[in-house]
Amino acid sequence: MSHSVEYIIQHIPPVDTSLAGAAQAHLDNLTKPRGSLGRLEELALRLYCIQGGDTPLAADPARIYTIAGDHGVAAEGVSPFPQEVTRQMVLNFLSSGAGINVLCNTVGCEQFVVDAGSCGGAYPEHPRLIQRKIHPGTASIAQGPAMTAEQCRQALQLGIDLAGMAREAGCRTVGTGEMGISNTTPSTALYCAYLGLDPAGITGPGAGITPDLVKHKTDIIRRALAVNAGAVQSQNAVDILAALGGYEIAALTGLILGAAYHRMAVLVDGFISTAAWTAAWKICPAVSDYSFFSHASAEAGHKTALRSMGIEPLHDLGLRLGEGTGAALTLFLLRSAAAIFNDMATFSSAGVATQSSC
Amino acid sequence: MSHSVEYIIQHIPPVDTSLAGAAQAHLDNLTKPRGSLGRLEELALRLYCIQGGDTPLAADPARIYTIAGDHGVAAEGVSPFPQEVTRQMVLNFLSSGAGINVLCNTVGCEQFVVDAGSCGGAYPEHPRLIQRKIHPGTASIAQGPAMTAEQCRQALQLGIDLAGMAREAGCRTVGTGEMGISNTTPSTALYCAYLGLDPAGITGPGAGITPDLVKHKTDIIRRALAVNAGAVQSQNAVDILAALGGYEIAALTGLILGAAYHRMAVLVDGFISTAAWTAAWKICPAVSDYSFFSHASAEAGHKTALRSMGIEPLHDLGLRLGEGTGAALTLFLLRSAAAIFNDMATFSSAGVATQSSC
Repeated sequence: MSHSVEYIIQHIPPVDTSLAGAAQAHLDNLTKPRGSLGRLEELALRLYCIQGGDTPLAADPARIYTIAGDHGVAAEGVSPFPQEVTRQMVLNFLSSGAGINVLCNTVGCEQFVVDAGSCGGAYPEHPRLIQRKIHPGTASIAQGPAMTAEQCRQALQLGIDLAGMAREAGCRTVGTGEMGISNTTPSTALYCAYLGLDPAGITGPGAGITPDLVKHKTDIIRRALAVNAGAVQSQNAVDILAALGGYEIAALTGLILGAAYHRMAVLVDGFISTAAWTAAWKICPAVSDYSFFSHASAEAGHKTALRSMGIEPLHDLGLRLGEGTGAALTLFLLRSAAAIFNDMATFSSAGVATQSSC
Repeated sequence: MSHSVEYIIQHIPPVDTSLAGAAQAHLDNLTKPRGSLGRLEELALRLYCIQGGDTPLAADPARIYTIAGDHGVAAEGVSPFPQEVTRQMVLNFLSSGAGINVLCNTVGCEQFVVDAGSCGGAYPEHPRLIQRKIHPGTASIAQGPAMTAEQCRQALQLGIDLAGMAREAGCRTVGTGEMGISNTTPSTALYCAYLGLDPAGITGPGAGITPDLVKHKTDIIRRALAVNAGAVQSQNAVDILAALGGYEIAALTGLILGAAYHRMAVLVDGFISTAAWTAAWKICPAVSDYSFFSHASAEAGHKTALRSMGIEPLHDLGLRLGEGTGAALTLFLLRSAAAIFNDMATFSSAGVATQSSC
């Protein structure tokens, strides 16, 4: 049913950027000063290219996957929350009490919850829950690799399968979300390894630790990079992901690769999702053609990482919750951009005089 | 039916900020790290105060008024579009072909179009059109005052009446929108007069003039400030509005004052709407308690003006269309904030462990 990781990576199509001219000409013919809808026009143009020039443009239906995983590095005391909160929040997602549930309901978007590697056993069955636990939590990145190569491959495959399921359900957009106590720590390590950033410059308070503990977390990340120096120095993107990532992170990487393969738009959430995205981009740069960056996280390293990749996110609202909350908010912008492209009158159809050349 | 301008100005209630503690306590008890929903939490807290501590919070129903007016200063060649485009766009709004129509449909929000002072005669009747033309276009601010004191009072009264109509229809939020060829010119002059800014620092291309014409526009604004120096030096907010504003701008000022009087949330759109808001704020500072700033316009002076008033807008998407388009986008954020406050589970109800003190 689903393609292999290797097949997907080799078959992600770059978008046909020669379509941009036709999209721009249409946008310039709508009843507004040229370019006056700013980044909404950029979103519409990119969606037109992603969707191969087919119109009307469609951002919907959309689906957000909130993928859960636990982290061995939590034992190092890098989060203010106990590890069992990952599991408790999975149950909260299923009873629709979390921020992501509220925002998915508000924007009108499906949400599925995925167990990629949380601690503890199976969850009660639920129509919005996909149980594909690879292992109950990663090993600590401060001691060695988080995952074996095979575990990382399984997590990538899980994400690719999730993309395939969304495509089969007719989705045009997928959003990335995650839950995993301590997962800003592996994410920060991934940014360092992929982008050559120093831990001191981008390590932050995550869910809310004190400045002293941020210093401790920085030391842990530095140790993780040293212990996993072989993978880091190899600059093999998948090896780095296995060494420093997590089950939910690698599954998100697979989801992004799979979504691009299926020509779906990808709404990338915040700090952790962007770390997963960075892995996907290092594995296959063409994913950037399909990706929309929801917001700049309040976790300060996020802006630094985004800037180092030349990315300007769409919102800057001080969010730092994850779960896919920023992706849900940004779906509204993508939907608005599609509607502008599809539904506005042209100067000639509305009988409006065009801009003079002055 | 509607209160007078004087009555409204004297009876705008500041919000009861002592309610903020209860709102914050509720937000901190929801299943998320404290403060992790960033500005959505700020919006919810402010809406709680605006709505007097009543729950559930409500951003809807919402209504956007797109108010049209023409400007004598258009004769000075400060816009790339001919003046008849104001009228053509009013008709476009009524046939639902404009950007604001598409975004109101996307977000789910009523839009009414108001003729406060466009050139030409009456429009054909339409269920979404309110015809209250004060005069067909202002006098040129480069020659003297834009409006007489009585005309300005009529425009303020119009806006107050529009707020009252929204309140009677059960609206909880109003959004400001406008259409008027050349109206960045009076708006820039208003910023200069109210905020002590220099025209050279904040005059921009508006709907799209060349750098040479921006320089010409700057000179025109400088002349308008000189010709109307009496009003400017008086620092009487209404006199300045009459001298340098416009019918749609003064009507928006009245709308903002009236909405605050009726304890509705106000979504302030872009460059022109914020100039109208600055007048309202100078007339009655308590309007700031009710106001949400949608976005930073691509018209560069907007950021300067906002910064000088200590305002951080919610979006930065390079918009410069007006009509209320930024307000429509931002309604989605206000609605999301209300939903977060109303619908998320608490730590105890969801059985999620709370943050430790570390």
